[in-house]
Amino acid sequence: MNRKQRIAIDMDDVIADTVEKFLSIYRREHNLELSAEEMHGKELRDALPAELYSTTRQYINQPGFFRDIPVMPDSQRVVKELYEKYDVFIVSAAMEFRNSLIDKYDWLAEYFPFIVWEHIIFCGLKIVNVDIFIDDRSRNFAGFEGRALLYTSHHNLLIDNYERVNNWQQVADKLL
Amino acid sequence: MNRKQRIAIDMDDVIADTVEKFLSIYRREHNLELSAEEMHGKELRDALPAELYSTTRQYINQPGFFRDIPVMPDSQRVVKELYEKYDVFIVSAAMEFRNSLIDKYDWLAEYFPFIVWEHIIFCGLKIVNVDIFIDDRSRNFAGFEGRALLYTSHHNLLIDNYERVNNWQQVADKLL
Repeated sequence: MNRKQRIAIDMDDVIADTVEKFLSIYRREHNLELSAEEMHGKELRDALPAELYSTTRQYINQPGFFRDIPVMPDSQRVVKELYEKYDVFIVSAAMEFRNSLIDKYDWLAEYFPFIVWEHIIFCGLKIVNVDIFIDDRSRNFAGFEGRALLYTSHHNLLIDNYERVNNWQQVADKLL
Repeated sequence: MNRKQRIAIDMDDVIADTVEKFLSIYRREHNLELSAEEMHGKELRDALPAELYSTTRQYINQPGFFRDIPVMPDSQRVVKELYEKYDVFIVSAAMEFRNSLIDKYDWLAEYFPFIVWEHIIFCGLKIVNVDIFIDDRSRNFAGFEGRALLYTSHHNLLIDNYERVNNWQQVADKLL
């Protein structure tokens, strides 16, 4: 193969700490603190008290929600290093949330300015032709025949049939 | 293969008559009428008088530009029929223009409401894993090993090394 290997990198809960954004909202708006134990193996909404179950959907659809998500620790440094060695593509299922599109575009421009527009993909199903795929949702690996790296998040802790990375330093150790 | 065949369909100058939108602007704003002969084998900007060369870039970056593009004749009917038989994905290089994202999303919702968000891809490089690819830009076929259908547009009339479709009825004749 003459070309560089291609890596697809997800946004939410991989380079963007979207769970932390949610937790800060529940802390502020509902005086609620969720522990790692309460979130273990669960979607965030399922770890919430029943009366708040539907609120994740409300918050996530608000314009601006995706604009100030904290950056995942070490992701900027490691993605920049990967960008030199591989063909790196950001691949987010942004299409699920209309209002996320411009926020995610601007967020990437602010925190990952070295990623050119040609290498950004907002989609639904991730039918991308890449060699390595870093994502926290194992459903996105369906049909994918390359190397899948499951980025650890509370909701995927009970899944054990994928190569796993717990943080960006582990991604660096494996791929750099 | 158990799954349906996948088709990627481009937006601009394939399901959206973007050249016609430009022509209507030049007609209205500059009292300029471009003939098919003047556009033959050229990018639109190269068919314009020199003093207007840079204006395509200005217009295309305006919020709203992509929201009211005319729908390409027969595209709604044929894409709907394709959608029944194939896994159809809309694949647009929308990422080149920040302000196009929401306009394109809303345009699709209005004119192609049957296309679910999972099947919409806004990207740069079109590294999609599909079987059939309908696009007016042959550069998007680079590295693609499936069946490429070059959708005829003024700018691609001098390209002769791809299977060509001149309109949506011809797509229907080939694929339905």
